[in-house]
Amino acid sequence: MLNITRRQFLTYVGAAGGSSALLKTSLAMGLMPDEAYAGPVQVKPAAHGSKPTVLILGAGIAGLATALELERAGFHCTILEASHRAGGRNLTVRHGDKIDEMGNTQICNFDKDENLFFNCGPARIPGHHRRILHYCRALGVPLQIKANSCKLAYFQDDKSFGGKPVRQIEYHADVRGLMSELVWKSAHSNQYDQLMSEEDVAKLVKFAQLHGDLSDTGKYVGTERAGSTTDRMLQFPKSNPPIELKAMLDSSFWQGGLLGAELYDWCEPLMEPSGGMDAVVKGFLRHLKNPPIVNAQVKKIYNREGGVEVSYEHQGKFHTMQADYCFNNIPAYFMAGIENNFSAVYQAGLDSIKRGHLFKIAYQMKERFWEKEGIYGGISYSADPINQIWYPSHDIHAPKGILLGAYTWDPKASATFEAMTPAERLIAGAKSGEKVHPGFSQYIENGISIPWARMNHQMGCGMRMSPEDFANYYPLLQKPEGRHFMIGDQISHHSGWQEGALASSEQALQQLNKVLGAHASPKGVNHGGVSHVA
Amino acid sequence: MLNITRRQFLTYVGAAGGSSALLKTSLAMGLMPDEAYAGPVQVKPAAHGSKPTVLILGAGIAGLATALELERAGFHCTILEASHRAGGRNLTVRHGDKIDEMGNTQICNFDKDENLFFNCGPARIPGHHRRILHYCRALGVPLQIKANSCKLAYFQDDKSFGGKPVRQIEYHADVRGLMSELVWKSAHSNQYDQLMSEEDVAKLVKFAQLHGDLSDTGKYVGTERAGSTTDRMLQFPKSNPPIELKAMLDSSFWQGGLLGAELYDWCEPLMEPSGGMDAVVKGFLRHLKNPPIVNAQVKKIYNREGGVEVSYEHQGKFHTMQADYCFNNIPAYFMAGIENNFSAVYQAGLDSIKRGHLFKIAYQMKERFWEKEGIYGGISYSADPINQIWYPSHDIHAPKGILLGAYTWDPKASATFEAMTPAERLIAGAKSGEKVHPGFSQYIENGISIPWARMNHQMGCGMRMSPEDFANYYPLLQKPEGRHFMIGDQISHHSGWQEGALASSEQALQQLNKVLGAHASPKGVNHGGVSHVA
Repeated sequence: MLNITRRQFLTYVGAAGGSSALLKTSLAMGLMPDEAYAGPVQVKPAAHGSKPTVLILGAGIAGLATALELERAGFHCTILEASHRAGGRNLTVRHGDKIDEMGNTQICNFDKDENLFFNCGPARIPGHHRRILHYCRALGVPLQIKANSCKLAYFQDDKSFGGKPVRQIEYHADVRGLMSELVWKSAHSNQYDQLMSEEDVAKLVKFAQLHGDLSDTGKYVGTERAGSTTDRMLQFPKSNPPIELKAMLDSSFWQGGLLGAELYDWCEPLMEPSGGMDAVVKGFLRHLKNPPIVNAQVKKIYNREGGVEVSYEHQGKFHTMQADYCFNNIPAYFMAGIENNFSAVYQAGLDSIKRGHLFKIAYQMKERFWEKEGIYGGISYSADPINQIWYPSHDIHAPKGILLGAYTWDPKASATFEAMTPAERLIAGAKSGEKVHPGFSQYIENGISIPWARMNHQMGCGMRMSPEDFANYYPLLQKPEGRHFMIGDQISHHSGWQEGALASSEQALQQLNKVLGAHASPKGVNHGGVSHVA
Repeated sequence: MLNITRRQFLTYVGAAGGSSALLKTSLAMGLMPDEAYAGPVQVKPAAHGSKPTVLILGAGIAGLATALELERAGFHCTILEASHRAGGRNLTVRHGDKIDEMGNTQICNFDKDENLFFNCGPARIPGHHRRILHYCRALGVPLQIKANSCKLAYFQDDKSFGGKPVRQIEYHADVRGLMSELVWKSAHSNQYDQLMSEEDVAKLVKFAQLHGDLSDTGKYVGTERAGSTTDRMLQFPKSNPPIELKAMLDSSFWQGGLLGAELYDWCEPLMEPSGGMDAVVKGFLRHLKNPPIVNAQVKKIYNREGGVEVSYEHQGKFHTMQADYCFNNIPAYFMAGIENNFSAVYQAGLDSIKRGHLFKIAYQMKERFWEKEGIYGGISYSADPINQIWYPSHDIHAPKGILLGAYTWDPKASATFEAMTPAERLIAGAKSGEKVHPGFSQYIENGISIPWARMNHQMGCGMRMSPEDFANYYPLLQKPEGRHFMIGDQISHHSGWQEGALASSEQALQQLNKVLGAHASPKGVNHGGVSHVA
């Protein structure tokens, strides 16, 4: 390092001793999302020479992670998956891939190009989702930034501003300006004098002025922060006149998209695996000793003395397997149809989990027309049932792109689309897209849609429980019933995110560790193998 | 497209006719940064059989773009560059590269790895910088999203909150909450009744409540939007108590970093060329017929009858060249030292352009420790002279990373660093870094700094003019003096950005087109070639 040694350098900085450790303890005004995270649960290793067996039902993210951690501890895991593939709702479709919707099988018509993909389920990872980020690191999943917020993208509502799409940056700046003007006005007319000292009121006036970019007399007259109506590279910038306060209050955007980038899970920057979210699934599969058995539909789950017995159908045959433990990633609302000997209250808990609705459309666009409007990723918000339009932020300036033409989790909006044929959905989405981007439809080459509530083996997305059911049943579902552990984002406080699925796995493995402590060494009747009964 | 033809589809959407064109005209509440941009200036092509000659002084971005457009129109361009390389302030250093600081030549000690690079000059591109984006597209420069804003990164000021680093997301959420509380209070106590209707006041109350995440009684008590002190994946989220209004007003962050992401040029998402900003320079060089002559120092510029004569030193020899036109990208404040026959007022204009100060430090870090804190790109803001710390958002989870440890354009802060040796700068930067990230120094493997005001052939960055000088001289400098055209970001309203440089080129070529129109066919004394006089 130039002309000094590393040791000298650290001495000069004053960081050589314990000073930095000292400072560290005085930190943490802000949260430290990852410092408390020491990695996945270390499962108590199997006793020397023993190989306890585990059945994992469902090859979603929670199932895959559970299998990985158990394999590392020396357990033998068998994963049974009902559908034709691993990953659960972590589903990325490309040319030729199937969307297995009930009665509406769709085949993806995108061009044969690895970068033309559609993340049907999870599509982004915030920096504080430490568990999924751990697995991306550990499994060698390459990540890239996913632009989630784009200030140049639009808000559009037929009922606001005559239906005209409004650039988010203008609305954002105007809301800040108008609010600051109100605060300035109140502060300036001594209305906060009882709340704070004269000196603080003076500071507040200055704050409001800078925050809102107000004039010297506290007026908001627009701001260059939202761009310029002139070519600001060659002329003095000139700002657009602002929205009026009344029009702002009448508009719908402050009730919707305005706060999008302010939600904790959506805070910039977000990430995505390069080439598609299914890179996470592929990462798990690369590291698992036993690949999942697909097209294996579970029919019975029985807690037995010292183990669990699971029966399933596979390629027209009926099998029964026994294992020391079972981790169950099957959507809980399917459990009513699976024979079991769970306690009534546990089964009632499973029944109480309702399915969420979530719907997406993806269009292959022959040109990335949005880039010509300055939009390189992020989201436009629509008041139509499509709710959101997402622009790809990877493969910038490529000839074509996959645009998310609808993304809603509103049950009513989703139901509108669920009732349509796939072709009708594409038409409805395009009609709404036209309002945000006139000419939108002309760029569409093909499209595909996914109504999660109509997907085979899923029939919904996420977990919905009434507050009463949640209070009554949830603590129960977080603990094992016999040797059966429920997992999946459904058994987390954060369903609909892979991070919730991984947390459920962590929680279940912690419970397992308790059980293993009690069992001393896990060798029940099923020790050493799995019995198949045709 | 499923079971309908493309034509049917467009008919169903109602987009087949002129309807979308119609809608388009009713748009534009928001600006359309790119729609007005039709690409670079088409230079009036050289007359058949003629090959007008052009001398371009300085191989910065403006010079390279000017040469490219002129070559396309059939002109013969010679680029003279004083330094050892093309690109000007578009400088990316990697292992072994030189920072040509006066008296302090530094050689970059980063590991030999293409992805360990430091963009010493421009480092990001917003979506509305349509000219540089045009060239990235046209020259095949691959772009990726550059996370510019990171809500999980910090604000740090010794004088605020006892010097503790504060997560930006908390401060952002608290400012929004506290402001909303003030507005709620004023609205609720009828203080806006003269400004608006009762109905609108009621809307304002609702707005403030949602915007700030206030309680039903209009109190701001913290928000889950800023995260949770519990593990929100497995427990109910709990928000941090908010900063108090007085403490917020006393803090410095609202005067600095808080508005960072609100500036038009910094609005998310920004981009960077994959692998370093110099990909832009390489792109130009790939497409230029005549590569720049480097180490060629211009000594004289004379407007002659029907042409321009330029003398320069190259490899110890003195050369004189003549050409039909000259485009001059040399920092204007150097022109005082270059013999010329410009009018007194033009020379006074050149003299009036002052140099800006800009300083950066880059450290090679042996671990990407920031990622463990949930930071995957973006900027922390410091009140120390370092001003900003930038985290790389490319090569996520790589073993090492280049961290920008200082980035300031404040003349005083820059001067502090300019007066130091390179080693002292690294120490000073690390001391400030320690306050944001205790333990910062322990990760440093090596580092390098760039004080642009001390760089050979630059001696500054950007353009600074007094308002009087600007009014007196700038319009003059935007027009040619004889056949000599000044270019560079210095001749734009937006210096310090490549977009400004390209705008200056566009402007000069438009002026050239006017001249060419007047000259009818550009064949002066210099037609057909360049004369070299040793």
